[in-house]
Amino acid sequence: MSGKLWGDGSEFSSELLDRFNASINFDRRLYREDIEGSRAHAEMLAAQGIISGEDLEAIKRGLAQVESEIERGEFDFKIADEDIHMAIEARLTAIIGEVGKRLHTARSRNDQVALDLRLWVLRKSREIAGLLRDLIAILLERAEENKSTIMPGFTHLQHAQVVNLAFHLLAYCAMFMRDFERFISSADRNNFSPLGSAALAGTPHKIDREMTARSLGFRGACFNAMDGVSDRDFALEAAFNASVAMTHLSRLCEELILWSSSEFGFIRISDRFTTGSSIMPQKRNPDAAELVRGKTGRVYGNLIALLVTMKSLPLAYNKDMQEDKERVFDALDALAECLTILTAMIADRQTVFNAEAMRRACAKGHLTATDLADSCTKSGVPFREAHHLARRAVNFAMEKGVDLSELTADDLASVDSRLAGFESSLDLTASMNSKSSFGGTSISSVETQIAIVREWLKS
Amino acid sequence: MSGKLWGDGSEFSSELLDRFNASINFDRRLYREDIEGSRAHAEMLAAQGIISGEDLEAIKRGLAQVESEIERGEFDFKIADEDIHMAIEARLTAIIGEVGKRLHTARSRNDQVALDLRLWVLRKSREIAGLLRDLIAILLERAEENKSTIMPGFTHLQHAQVVNLAFHLLAYCAMFMRDFERFISSADRNNFSPLGSAALAGTPHKIDREMTARSLGFRGACFNAMDGVSDRDFALEAAFNASVAMTHLSRLCEELILWSSSEFGFIRISDRFTTGSSIMPQKRNPDAAELVRGKTGRVYGNLIALLVTMKSLPLAYNKDMQEDKERVFDALDALAECLTILTAMIADRQTVFNAEAMRRACAKGHLTATDLADSCTKSGVPFREAHHLARRAVNFAMEKGVDLSELTADDLASVDSRLAGFESSLDLTASMNSKSSFGGTSISSVETQIAIVREWLKS
Amino acid sequence: MSGKLWGDGSEFSSELLDRFNASINFDRRLYREDIEGSRAHAEMLAAQGIISGEDLEAIKRGLAQVESEIERGEFDFKIADEDIHMAIEARLTAIIGEVGKRLHTARSRNDQVALDLRLWVLRKSREIAGLLRDLIAILLERAEENKSTIMPGFTHLQHAQVVNLAFHLLAYCAMFMRDFERFISSADRNNFSPLGSAALAGTPHKIDREMTARSLGFRGACFNAMDGVSDRDFALEAAFNASVAMTHLSRLCEELILWSSSEFGFIRISDRFTTGSSIMPQKRNPDAAELVRGKTGRVYGNLIALLVTMKSLPLAYNKDMQEDKERVFDALDALAECLTILTAMIADRQTVFNAEAMRRACAKGHLTATDLADSCTKSGVPFREAHHLARRAVNFAMEKGVDLSELTADDLASVDSRLAGFESSLDLTASMNSKSSFGGTSISSVETQIAIVREWLKS
Amino acid sequence: MSGKLWGDGSEFSSELLDRFNASINFDRRLYREDIEGSRAHAEMLAAQGIISGEDLEAIKRGLAQVESEIERGEFDFKIADEDIHMAIEARLTAIIGEVGKRLHTARSRNDQVALDLRLWVLRKSREIAGLLRDLIAILLERAEENKSTIMPGFTHLQHAQVVNLAFHLLAYCAMFMRDFERFISSADRNNFSPLGSAALAGTPHKIDREMTARSLGFRGACFNAMDGVSDRDFALEAAFNASVAMTHLSRLCEELILWSSSEFGFIRISDRFTTGSSIMPQKRNPDAAELVRGKTGRVYGNLIALLVTMKSLPLAYNKDMQEDKERVFDALDALAECLTILTAMIADRQTVFNAEAMRRACAKGHLTATDLADSCTKSGVPFREAHHLARRAVNFAMEKGVDLSELTADDLASVDSRLAGFESSLDLTASMNSKSSFGGTSISSVETQIAIVREWLKS
Repeated sequence: MSGKLWGDGSEFSSELLDRFNASINFDRRLYREDIEGSRAHAEMLAAQGIISGEDLEAIKRGLAQVESEIERGEFDFKIADEDIHMAIEARLTAIIGEVGKRLHTARSRNDQVALDLRLWVLRKSREIAGLLRDLIAILLERAEENKSTIMPGFTHLQHAQVVNLAFHLLAYCAMFMRDFERFISSADRNNFSPLGSAALAGTPHKIDREMTARSLGFRGACFNAMDGVSDRDFALEAAFNASVAMTHLSRLCEELILWSSSEFGFIRISDRFTTGSSIMPQKRNPDAAELVRGKTGRVYGNLIALLVTMKSLPLAYNKDMQEDKERVFDALDALAECLTILTAMIADRQTVFNAEAMRRACAKGHLTATDLADSCTKSGVPFREAHHLARRAVNFAMEKGVDLSELTADDLASVDSRLAGFESSLDLTASMNSKSSFGGTSISSVETQIAIVREWLKS
Repeated sequence: MSGKLWGDGSEFSSELLDRFNASINFDRRLYREDIEGSRAHAEMLAAQGIISGEDLEAIKRGLAQVESEIERGEFDFKIADEDIHMAIEARLTAIIGEVGKRLHTARSRNDQVALDLRLWVLRKSREIAGLLRDLIAILLERAEENKSTIMPGFTHLQHAQVVNLAFHLLAYCAMFMRDFERFISSADRNNFSPLGSAALAGTPHKIDREMTARSLGFRGACFNAMDGVSDRDFALEAAFNASVAMTHLSRLCEELILWSSSEFGFIRISDRFTTGSSIMPQKRNPDAAELVRGKTGRVYGNLIALLVTMKSLPLAYNKDMQEDKERVFDALDALAECLTILTAMIADRQTVFNAEAMRRACAKGHLTATDLADSCTKSGVPFREAHHLARRAVNFAMEKGVDLSELTADDLASVDSRLAGFESSLDLTASMNSKSSFGGTSISSVETQIAIVREWLKS
Repeated sequence: MSGKLWGDGSEFSSELLDRFNASINFDRRLYREDIEGSRAHAEMLAAQGIISGEDLEAIKRGLAQVESEIERGEFDFKIADEDIHMAIEARLTAIIGEVGKRLHTARSRNDQVALDLRLWVLRKSREIAGLLRDLIAILLERAEENKSTIMPGFTHLQHAQVVNLAFHLLAYCAMFMRDFERFISSADRNNFSPLGSAALAGTPHKIDREMTARSLGFRGACFNAMDGVSDRDFALEAAFNASVAMTHLSRLCEELILWSSSEFGFIRISDRFTTGSSIMPQKRNPDAAELVRGKTGRVYGNLIALLVTMKSLPLAYNKDMQEDKERVFDALDALAECLTILTAMIADRQTVFNAEAMRRACAKGHLTATDLADSCTKSGVPFREAHHLARRAVNFAMEKGVDLSELTADDLASVDSRLAGFESSLDLTASMNSKSSFGGTSISSVETQIAIVREWLKS
Repeated sequence: MSGKLWGDGSEFSSELLDRFNASINFDRRLYREDIEGSRAHAEMLAAQGIISGEDLEAIKRGLAQVESEIERGEFDFKIADEDIHMAIEARLTAIIGEVGKRLHTARSRNDQVALDLRLWVLRKSREIAGLLRDLIAILLERAEENKSTIMPGFTHLQHAQVVNLAFHLLAYCAMFMRDFERFISSADRNNFSPLGSAALAGTPHKIDREMTARSLGFRGACFNAMDGVSDRDFALEAAFNASVAMTHLSRLCEELILWSSSEFGFIRISDRFTTGSSIMPQKRNPDAAELVRGKTGRVYGNLIALLVTMKSLPLAYNKDMQEDKERVFDALDALAECLTILTAMIADRQTVFNAEAMRRACAKGHLTATDLADSCTKSGVPFREAHHLARRAVNFAMEKGVDLSELTADDLASVDSRLAGFESSLDLTASMNSKSSFGGTSISSVETQIAIVREWLKS
């Protein structure tokens, strides 16, 4: 027993126990939502004649003082108060006396905490949506600058076709637009107030839940009180939305890391977001990008933690649910931070793409072989034969020690007369521009895509 | 080396390798989507003049034959064909000759697999939404039958307040309604066609992506081809939506298991969904409910597997993504099965609630103490004093060895004259009915909730 | 862009960036391991003649002062110092001058952080093993007190057979013993020092890694430097071991919560670990047990986060790995806290089992029907026939409205003459004691199990 | 209700229900373990006089026939048999008559399934350990061939120091050696037999659990029956060990994918493990490596699924646990397959490292700047000054447009006289060889490492 014996249990530090049970160390962060909810509740109680007008005035005055004490850092958060709800109520009562307790009429800590956390999550979700917009906007800006910057398009991390950088960046715009929509959609679907659910079954008081819901910015009130206090779908959705956004960020960061390697050399990330070596000046560790990629694990972990905690819980409230807050705080904070850093990194004018390196890379892998075959087909050569001819041209280039795109008109003709005149199809930029279908990489297609994103940003 | 040495590698079984790379064993399930996509693609190619009308007819005829062969179980799926796309194309070409290959003009396996899986996921999501409706409908039916069935409402698995069974079941209606909305919302958000994205960059052919999108039931075409072939958000969303639904099912099943225990005795699940002992006739293992609860792990696992696989993948297509299919199949199949079983179990008339046991349970824990205090307050006794009086009544009941709800008018008066006349507030049913706020457990509140759900089901 | 435009990036708060990159806010916790590692490194450098004896003395003096400043809370942790290694080095150099920098000879932050975290994890693992011992010891104590306390043994949460409480508690001893062994096994397997791996490739200095390894309590030095700096298996193992232990704790807590429900009533948890209602005195929310169960999610989440962060990282060190610390801290802290609380809760003499309720529960479900059939078989009645007779006895009991265990000798005889004389096999305690195979629930078998655990505790 | 109404439940397909409950479709795979366990159990029953010698002979004969029917594919697996245990028992009884049922004396499906799965997991774990050895052996072979193959050592995917390929490969040997030890350690820790635990409480029959345990290759019998039937730690450990091994494989595959990119060009993977393009001959998609990396998600998912399923389950057996088998099968199968493929890929002589490309890459990034500074320090130049001089040499090289390693003796002297004579420290191979500390990258250090691994392989 590690040298100590448990007797009747009384030796056990009650401080440890209090700390184990208390949530005040992390839910204090909800003070603003808690006070706002209390204010709305008090207004409603007065409107319904449940408390008097003077009581309401006293409560509002008291709450204002509590809020200001917290914001000025003068509030004494004590483990003994257990949670933010009790801490505020205790202080309120100390300020305005017994009337402070009337505020607790027709509600319980169960609906109070459900309300506070939901308000916080909905707001943070909208804030994150704003950060996603910022990132999309800066990516769009870079896309607009790079419509003619050709680079190899990869599949399996192998050169596949010539694309332009704008096209590649627009793929990320599409991802982050879906992320934005997920956050907004969740915030909307869960925009119902649990306030007034009381402990789990509603209340005998003649409350007006619609009034508090509206005044707090909700669409309406949850229609079943037991669900109202035990529902944490809004937190699960937020953690999932954050996980998908982090998946996208991890893909972007993986590419930034690859591209800033000595082997790729496609980008030079601003010194403000890298660390280096005083002695090896070209060393430029993409710390910020790596850290974002690494934080993906943390966000996934928060999602799974929330799901596991909620699994198999009988209705209605169980103390297990106290674990929800830290997970959803951590997930959304991490995402917000990552979005901010990444947006800044890409916006930084010291972060520069190396168009020359990208172009050089395109001339590796005979990327225009398919274009050559396509051209032949269009002029009537059967598909199989066209393929065969293109393959012969590639072999010729390999023997000559150059990329297919570097063959001349004469070279082509010397391979086979049916290839004569198709030298323009070997051109890298022409290859990129030929993919002019909707969503393709040609400059015109890319301009359409830019217009779509720009339009979206406006709405 | 386990007794064998790798020499030049040629001893290595190529069958094992083929099996490792092939997806045909699981993606054959997408044959219908694949054929449907091919048909739409062919129609469009013909409409655009890229293939001839005869080619189109031949292709349609061939595809019809392939489909019928698969459906009659006469199709020979071979590992050598690698995936469903190649298997169908190979067979098509065997049937109609070289023209079969023209079908592959202006598309690639990258957009083809993205299309097939997306079509499957969107459809399965809508099918699951239908199953959720079924479950809600049966829960609503049971709720309507049990508006007067009182039972203890629990928090922390402790008796907290008297509620009715309808109210408790309606909490689950609320959860499954959100699940329904999540599936529909996801199916809508991701309802864009990747077809025509080709390998990753679009195509030089003059295709009409809007036409194929519409004919396949999409809202439109994905606006960026690179995103089109590398986006798996729709699969992630489906796996997450399934995870939340399973969380809700696990909560319901946990309660069904508890309630069917000897200790609770709140429900007797139909023999068709339990297993027993030939010798101990009352033993009734709630196998189906346990299995649903257990499958929650599997669905969470599929979600995390998909997230992990997509993390940090550079654009565009990578072979890692072949792993997406089995995960999303397994998650959605498991959920669909669980919903079907659970709906049937609750619909089964041999599954019966034990109203008497529930009522008896309410008479444990002096659940109406708060009601007594509330009544006093309303008649003017200050809150603290009212609480004190109620506590004294509880003590009186405990000494008498009965539940507070069993005290008589005389008992109350004998405790304190200020309690006289409040005996009706001790009544269990009255307690339940007093919670008449919106979303509360009173019969009238519950009727409102039933009307809300009924209305929702109609829409 | 939220009203602000990113220009050249310089408006971007560098404080935010610094905070994003810095680990000092959480890795400061490793100060003791960092100083200890530095001391061992300095001793070795001096022993190898790489630094002078005076340098060593100065460094040791300086480190002692830094350590004391930190412990007295006088150390100024600054974000600008980035991490604990830099913070200590900077302060050391401020105290003893340039000689402080010589300490960094032949090591780098990569092996330093690998060392610090590994030391911390190994120690915490051993501390947790001690807490597991404590819990096993108290469970054993309770088992010894409850060898004759009969209770229903459950499968599928249905009464299955009569067991005793000691037997049930010993199942948990077995689980926690495996947990103990897992932590010890991991601590042993990973007990190798990365110090001296330097940045990733070793060092040209003539260092003695064996010396530092031994002086820090390791079995030896990691044999490959690149692995030394990039290996985080020890953290993964610790997070997994914590996850399994939490799985076991969640099972125990689930049972404590069930057992303390009004329906089961098998246990009354000490007030010190529950919360209640001032007005409903029997309400006793098992908060601590619920919170432990809820924290299982958090620990699983940390495990998956660590796995995800390490997935697909190229060698050797990547900044992603900075994310490892908070996850492993959180997992092991949570487990340690949960073990402490639970041990105290069970040790508390106010936590009492209700033997009478458990006994009463055994008389539900005709649990001894199998015993009756078994007895018949032993006396020569064929198995099928014996089963049939037992079933008839159960029917008789049901008609009489009693449990099978309550039938008299006459009752049995009246059912069938072949049952005459087997009334002792209906006895609940006799049923329990009949399961006397190794590992069974009979008192004698349980005494053997107690002896096994007691012996294990001694070793 | 999708157009159909649930009436009394009887319309509900019982086939669907049977399929939901049955495990025969996946647990049939355990037939060998099941038969082996039955054989050992029967031998023990006979040895203890519980069944007769003739019964034993009949049972053994019957089991042999069943086994041979299964192996010849002549066994009719039916959903109606529910699981492999019932299927075999039913067939056995059909073959040898009622005596077949005696085999079930003193055991239950609960300990039977616990036994079968445990046997399977322990064996598969040892098989996987063998596959890990194979992979280590081939990596060691490649390491021995590449002790002089220099390459850039990376941190943050940036060139950091010159290392050799053998050193890099040996880091993976170290990882896989730990994986091997984890599997062996788990197999040993869990090597106890649950057989004889019966349903959950042991049995009244005079069985000899030690005898069955030994004959099945266990160290002994689980000491508590309730733990025996409800313990799945062995499955959790196997899934975790697989997850860590997949983490290591994902790191190796990430590097193989990077290295086979056009940008790195460090390796050419054999055609047998890549797919290509008929027209672009250099395209070589590293499919097998990508698929291994992708499967990491699946294995993590299986681990989390198992943990979630076991969370909060009350003792002893619950039907939820039926979900364990598919998860652990899938995790271990996936790992075994990945190990086999990867070993074959590296063993294949068509998989070749491009030493020239690696060497060229070393000459990017002035990797020997630190070596130059180190040399200066050793000759007495103070650290700071040495650093300053090295930095000036780098600047000189940059101006000259060459790498530091390409400077001549004259160049160095012209930068600063104190650098004269240190040109050998600029040499790439010399730089690699200077890291001669234990675990370092010098050829001599690497030879020590090779000897360590070779020794380990022998043991």
